[in-house]
Amino acid sequence: MTPVVTIREIGRWVGQTVRLQGWLYNKRSSGKIQFLQVRDGTGLIQCVVVRSEVGDEIFARCDKLTQECSLTVDGVVRADERAPSGYELTVTDVNLIGPSHDYPITLKEHGVDFLLDHRHLWIRTPRQRAILKIRAEVMRAMSLYLDGHGFTRVDPPILTPAACEGTTELFHTRYFDEDAYLTQSGQLYLEAAAMALGKVYSMGPAFRAEKSKTRRHLIEFWMIEPEMAFFRHEDNLRLQEEFVSFVVKHVLDNCEPELRTLGRDVDKLSKVVPPFPRMTYDEAVAWLNQHGHDLKWGDDFGAPHETAIAEQFDKPVFIERYPTHLKAFYMQPDPDRPEVVLCADMLAPEGYGEIVGGSERIHDYYLLKRRFEEHQLPEEAYGWYLDLRKYGSVPHSGFGIGLERTVAWICGLEHVREAIPFPRMLYRLYP
Amino acid sequence: MTPVVTIREIGRWVGQTVRLQGWLYNKRSSGKIQFLQVRDGTGLIQCVVVRSEVGDEIFARCDKLTQECSLTVDGVVRADERAPSGYELTVTDVNLIGPSHDYPITLKEHGVDFLLDHRHLWIRTPRQRAILKIRAEVMRAMSLYLDGHGFTRVDPPILTPAACEGTTELFHTRYFDEDAYLTQSGQLYLEAAAMALGKVYSMGPAFRAEKSKTRRHLIEFWMIEPEMAFFRHEDNLRLQEEFVSFVVKHVLDNCEPELRTLGRDVDKLSKVVPPFPRMTYDEAVAWLNQHGHDLKWGDDFGAPHETAIAEQFDKPVFIERYPTHLKAFYMQPDPDRPEVVLCADMLAPEGYGEIVGGSERIHDYYLLKRRFEEHQLPEEAYGWYLDLRKYGSVPHSGFGIGLERTVAWICGLEHVREAIPFPRMLYRLYP
Repeated sequence: MTPVVTIREIGRWVGQTVRLQGWLYNKRSSGKIQFLQVRDGTGLIQCVVVRSEVGDEIFARCDKLTQECSLTVDGVVRADERAPSGYELTVTDVNLIGPSHDYPITLKEHGVDFLLDHRHLWIRTPRQRAILKIRAEVMRAMSLYLDGHGFTRVDPPILTPAACEGTTELFHTRYFDEDAYLTQSGQLYLEAAAMALGKVYSMGPAFRAEKSKTRRHLIEFWMIEPEMAFFRHEDNLRLQEEFVSFVVKHVLDNCEPELRTLGRDVDKLSKVVPPFPRMTYDEAVAWLNQHGHDLKWGDDFGAPHETAIAEQFDKPVFIERYPTHLKAFYMQPDPDRPEVVLCADMLAPEGYGEIVGGSERIHDYYLLKRRFEEHQLPEEAYGWYLDLRKYGSVPHSGFGIGLERTVAWICGLEHVREAIPFPRMLYRLYP
Repeated sequence: MTPVVTIREIGRWVGQTVRLQGWLYNKRSSGKIQFLQVRDGTGLIQCVVVRSEVGDEIFARCDKLTQECSLTVDGVVRADERAPSGYELTVTDVNLIGPSHDYPITLKEHGVDFLLDHRHLWIRTPRQRAILKIRAEVMRAMSLYLDGHGFTRVDPPILTPAACEGTTELFHTRYFDEDAYLTQSGQLYLEAAAMALGKVYSMGPAFRAEKSKTRRHLIEFWMIEPEMAFFRHEDNLRLQEEFVSFVVKHVLDNCEPELRTLGRDVDKLSKVVPPFPRMTYDEAVAWLNQHGHDLKWGDDFGAPHETAIAEQFDKPVFIERYPTHLKAFYMQPDPDRPEVVLCADMLAPEGYGEIVGGSERIHDYYLLKRRFEEHQLPEEAYGWYLDLRKYGSVPHSGFGIGLERTVAWICGLEHVREAIPFPRMLYRLYP
């Protein structure tokens, strides 16, 4: 019986007859030869059909194949250095499984709205497949790193009684007799879990009902949020640079065909090794002022500021110690300068902006209680979070990394919408 | 400098002085000796404080330590076969980090409502830690298996314009100008992804606004949903039994201390190896009728029926080929008997009920279109799903496995609520 193989592993079968199961991506014909570009979800390969070898009946069958029909192809595997995948199939038989007429996504250019309306089909193209494959490998790399460094995966709830940061930009739902909101971050829950399990991380969806349409924003996005007990700001930065470097290296090592499909400049990625450069917020403001940006101490950075700073470096850069009022209520003040907090944002190079935000958390009960009052956070909703400082509080730190932004950077995408299988954006909920 | 180590890896440091960072779980005293039970998120160890060795000052310091205070303990690691962890620490120094007064969860029994109200602290107990650790290992095992078998992880959207199965029991939210619902299953999206990537799986939250209070139901739960192109019912069952067996073996191999903490009978788990027994729905009805259950062909099974069937076996059992009208619209009819579908539920042993549901999916365009009409599913919402049969349809199958039910079974829990860090149940949204 002919072995059924995948395109990814076809190199193991050189000289042998195998069967592929897949879809017709494209077809070229030159009289007595047809070239079928076949994809099977693991890769793309050229299958050569020679009339004099397969006979008229099979050759005519191939003539009728249309874009994205499903089929099986039997043939002999040949190594071919000119082929993009390194291999070609010399076809001995072809059988149609499912027809495909008037496939909407032709091989010419389409507008992005049309492609997003057909996202369920758009993901079949080699470029979109490559992005989704890299996304999966980024997630795998993150788990590999954290599982290998003593972290326990913990899934914080999605439905929450109150917001982590502010109450605007939340999706609301009725939870039986109560009001519930979709989580923006699992951090507070992860802090509780870190007191139980030491080092923890989450990997799950988060939601922001933000009316913004930028190339960096999704309404529904995935975050990975490590949280570590007995961990200081300095430990946190070291972990982050090791973690991000590990992920990039994993993709370089495991996704060579996909990076090639995307035309990604891998030399740029290979520079992502620890340590990462660091600037304080103060230094960043001074640098921006020297370079024509009108900004005072205490102002937040916008995308143009982030891009200007990040462009100085060929790897991600940390901006540390922002003014306290710019950041979330739970961040630990710098003991030497309480007007700034022990936090850092990590900005990706090449204009991709912030991919990580993290900080040491307040571990003093009284300070946190004061912050609750300043921010008018109701103790009945957040009492449990205060408990973490009441019963065996310890210094702890954590960070959140945006999956789609990280994938967009690693893949070199213009917009995060391609970095998730079915993007949810302003006014886009379909398919 | 004294090396900071975790309890899990302390066996590597026998005879050496190390530092632990953790929390006081419990304390016993017998005059001149104190026994501190210290936990650090990776395990629990007994630390022995001898007055004549540490001196009065440190001994008095230990006297003041209270339940769940955080601390560092320095000491010499001793192998001790009588100790539950196999090791003890002979203390040389102790330092308090964070106090803990009137810790709410004492070491006596508490009611479950009280414990759920204090879930953020309850997870610190050795039993709850063990469950969460096993949950994390179950997720890791699932990814390891699927990533190692050619699957690509794909994250279907959580916010969807319409429901996968029925429209009741959905959480609703306003998505800008539209209505959106929280997903009950990513399956339809995964089918689209399988046509792009071959074999895919998701690992994410799902939601059922069900007003039921049983030991098997959560409002918010996690599902793992593999979906495979070019995959038949028979392939699906074989994959499921290998997958579940792999997960159980992984836990047996990696979570020995946690299973011991839970008092789990591991002999029962070690019987979970392929192949799993199979019954058709017809055979199950006949068997139930023979054993005192009043049930006709066409009736659905309840929990007592599932338990009765599963109790015959010492490993999970498949119930195959249910009547078409009992199952979801997208299931492929048995070609020899169209009144049943090519589906199977997997029932766990020991009364844990259904943990997996799966089927071959309809791949014929016209049959699926007819089902849409029969179930009055609007084509404007599901048109994209029909497209999958219009453009290169292939036989495909998939299944969904409930994470918390699987964890509850592997851990031997009475209720799924302990199998998730922060359970969401009927009227329970806090903490």
